[in-house]
Amino acid sequence: MVETRANSPAERPSAEGLGADLHLDHLGLRGRHGLRTSLTNALREAVRTGRLQPGARLPSSRTLAADLSIARNTVADAYAELVAEGWLTARQGSGTRVARRAEPGRAPKAGSDRVALRRPTPIRAPGARFSLLPGNPDLASFPRAQWLAAARRALTAAPHEALGYGDARGRVELRTALAGYLARARGVHATPDRIVICAGFVHGLRLIGSVLRGRGVRTVAVEAYGVPQYYDLLTDAGLRTPALPLDEGGTRTAELGSLDAGAVLLTPAHQYPTGGALSADRRAAAVDWARATGGLVLEDDYDGEFRYDRQPVGALQGLDPDRVGYFGTASKSLAPGLRLGWMVLPRPVAQEVIAAKGHVDWAPGSFDQLTLAEFLTSGDYDRHVRAMRLRYRRRRDQLVAAVAEHAPGIRVSGIAAGLHAVLDLPPGTERPVIAAGAKLGLALDGLGDFVHPSARELPAGSRGDGLVVGYATPPDSAWPGALAALCEVLPR
Amino acid sequence: MVETRANSPAERPSAEGLGADLHLDHLGLRGRHGLRTSLTNALREAVRTGRLQPGARLPSSRTLAADLSIARNTVADAYAELVAEGWLTARQGSGTRVARRAEPGRAPKAGSDRVALRRPTPIRAPGARFSLLPGNPDLASFPRAQWLAAARRALTAAPHEALGYGDARGRVELRTALAGYLARARGVHATPDRIVICAGFVHGLRLIGSVLRGRGVRTVAVEAYGVPQYYDLLTDAGLRTPALPLDEGGTRTAELGSLDAGAVLLTPAHQYPTGGALSADRRAAAVDWARATGGLVLEDDYDGEFRYDRQPVGALQGLDPDRVGYFGTASKSLAPGLRLGWMVLPRPVAQEVIAAKGHVDWAPGSFDQLTLAEFLTSGDYDRHVRAMRLRYRRRRDQLVAAVAEHAPGIRVSGIAAGLHAVLDLPPGTERPVIAAGAKLGLALDGLGDFVHPSARELPAGSRGDGLVVGYATPPDSAWPGALAALCEVLPR
Repeated sequence: MVETRANSPAERPSAEGLGADLHLDHLGLRGRHGLRTSLTNALREAVRTGRLQPGARLPSSRTLAADLSIARNTVADAYAELVAEGWLTARQGSGTRVARRAEPGRAPKAGSDRVALRRPTPIRAPGARFSLLPGNPDLASFPRAQWLAAARRALTAAPHEALGYGDARGRVELRTALAGYLARARGVHATPDRIVICAGFVHGLRLIGSVLRGRGVRTVAVEAYGVPQYYDLLTDAGLRTPALPLDEGGTRTAELGSLDAGAVLLTPAHQYPTGGALSADRRAAAVDWARATGGLVLEDDYDGEFRYDRQPVGALQGLDPDRVGYFGTASKSLAPGLRLGWMVLPRPVAQEVIAAKGHVDWAPGSFDQLTLAEFLTSGDYDRHVRAMRLRYRRRRDQLVAAVAEHAPGIRVSGIAAGLHAVLDLPPGTERPVIAAGAKLGLALDGLGDFVHPSARELPAGSRGDGLVVGYATPPDSAWPGALAALCEVLPR
Repeated sequence: MVETRANSPAERPSAEGLGADLHLDHLGLRGRHGLRTSLTNALREAVRTGRLQPGARLPSSRTLAADLSIARNTVADAYAELVAEGWLTARQGSGTRVARRAEPGRAPKAGSDRVALRRPTPIRAPGARFSLLPGNPDLASFPRAQWLAAARRALTAAPHEALGYGDARGRVELRTALAGYLARARGVHATPDRIVICAGFVHGLRLIGSVLRGRGVRTVAVEAYGVPQYYDLLTDAGLRTPALPLDEGGTRTAELGSLDAGAVLLTPAHQYPTGGALSADRRAAAVDWARATGGLVLEDDYDGEFRYDRQPVGALQGLDPDRVGYFGTASKSLAPGLRLGWMVLPRPVAQEVIAAKGHVDWAPGSFDQLTLAEFLTSGDYDRHVRAMRLRYRRRRDQLVAAVAEHAPGIRVSGIAAGLHAVLDLPPGTERPVIAAGAKLGLALDGLGDFVHPSARELPAGSRGDGLVVGYATPPDSAWPGALAALCEVLPR
């Protein structure tokens, strides 16, 4: 699962996707004081909250007006108002920018001696209009009305004790609903007592990391490509994170024996971000390793519901529920803002996680847990996932077709699944393509942002250059423009 | 506002002519919360900004009242409030003065060794019918309909980006609403950028613990009575937690200098669980210590909204927002199941907490955050707190009356505040009383469950035997039975 880097300071100085993000219809609805005022307020708030950082260049009034399908004068008036108020500056030749104020001096944390797992500095267009960064579902498609209706049913029916501190495992209603759903949809061997609710994958990984460390584990093997924050988190827990090599068949789990690891973190259904599925023999090898050594497989099933060419391959956890810990999340299927995830764990691990959790937190809130339980049991969840599957599949097909037409030399690799695709690029072109995208206002991520530092030296470590295209990210209004910009920067 | 003549350096140490310059009519116009509050605020502001200098003597309440043509009691109340908050001092023979922030010489000493922090095994009735355990509000009184209505308004109005991974500080809507509320209700110096949303106090304390440890802090002083899980949590973060002694005036913060601590965890408004308020000079001593040593005061304001005999004493944080980190929570005012808390932090600490939080979690969910923001701005929160204040006050009065009638030798100690009271017991009777309660199906907690291990040896450490009665815990239907069972087991 991808806890997106959209929080990374490096991305702050941009105004990417601004038009797409301003939600004109929504503004219009709220616009008691008229569209211009609503737009002015939305922009001011974006500056005030730091979503638009000092120095960021805004789209031209013509561009933003086109994005929002409103009159250009409305945008120009809003800009003028905010320039007058001091929020923005306008200069000949450099366009409209967020005013620079005093630097918010940040006290740098005293450097620990942990290994620096730094990703390359992303290239970002100061005035990015489109984002194809991976990690987010289409937030505009969140089923607000159904969710609110489920919340009403759930909270109305909840016993009073549901409002109390509660069970460190999470609400039994949700664990019961998930046990049924995960068995049916993902082949997970799940019973409510094996399930622990957490506030997303990062929270779950933190808990597992501290449990593993408490058991004396020193090393958690990871994949050659992945999310650098996860390595950091495990490193913070006192664990080393050597990487396994990767090739066309996926992560080479047969080499686990050479790493002296106590656990391995895998994305078997859809390797993140390279996009392959772990082959059957390598799935078996991971479980065999765990059985032989007493190790634990951590299965990050971040987008297992989204497969477009066939029925999804069942979770690895089904092969051996006593050796595999399964991690799922609502961040891709519903919305990251819910901060809802779940772990299905071997019973002894579940007990240790609960003990660790009991002392330090009870997150997430029981209302959201009860609402998700209701959403699952009412069938709303299945309906939503089916609708999004069609939607994302269509987007992926459009991406494949557009690349075939405009850049026939570029291969779209990985299985037809999930919320992102990988475009393989000729050697040496990844950074230039990202830079060219930035110039057009298109935010892109390259494979190089996800490669494990040690994997660069592995024999089959590096997959070469490529783009990781998050085709679920833009709202419908921004999708055609994002796709066109992408095709424009791809090498022919 | 206090437009005093004290601007001339020669006049700084006095506040003569204060009354003439206080502009009553202006105060009256501002006085949405009453003249007393306006006067209190004006005086506090004058001290905070230095217009009234340390050591300056204020006019007598009689003189100032005559000057302002208001009731003397209004002035006396305002003075008393500011004395309680630590802004002013009142001494026989020297009148009321602006508090001096004297530099106490730092006397660092080798800290105590880490002690085993085990609480006694609680006695629990397996089939307890009643609970008077402290820590929960009356869950049956949670305003479900109003909360759902606020959730609908909040989620309907939310921009799409609110459903994304979001800001590690928490939603700006909630931080803005809290800044206003906390300033008004608790005298907290709060701006949205100082606020960090967390999943309850435990989550916040974990974050602060890791930040302190990262700064090289080794020791966090705690109170002689408190919640053992908090000590455990700090201990897990690699911090020692020596206890300060406690006496009738509260925690002896003047002894902070002897502990070589980098921070101190306090419950100034309502010591948990012994129930006293920290005296004005000890509030001042804590801030003085922090200023002199660069230490941080952690103010756990878990139930500051609930005071029944008078206006609540303002938060200690107001005395020095750069030295005090304030912690609030919805767990007592609304429901623990929400897992919603907030920290108001010195800016550098806020930045470090955000950095720590950015990598490991974004909890809690944005829907609950947006709903609480709506609940605050709509006035629902104030209405609910007012209603609960009446309800809990009635419960406390009934408890006091019942104890006076059935066990007249037992003193109900602590201030009339919060969700629990302490019943002082004769030596040696605490455990037998709890056991007798368990036999009747009544779950009770004793003071012994909350005493810090090292405090048993402190000169003024142990308060002796007692019960910590959570009178908010039972629903209305169970309250009379719980009270009757309690009276039955109290020694006569």
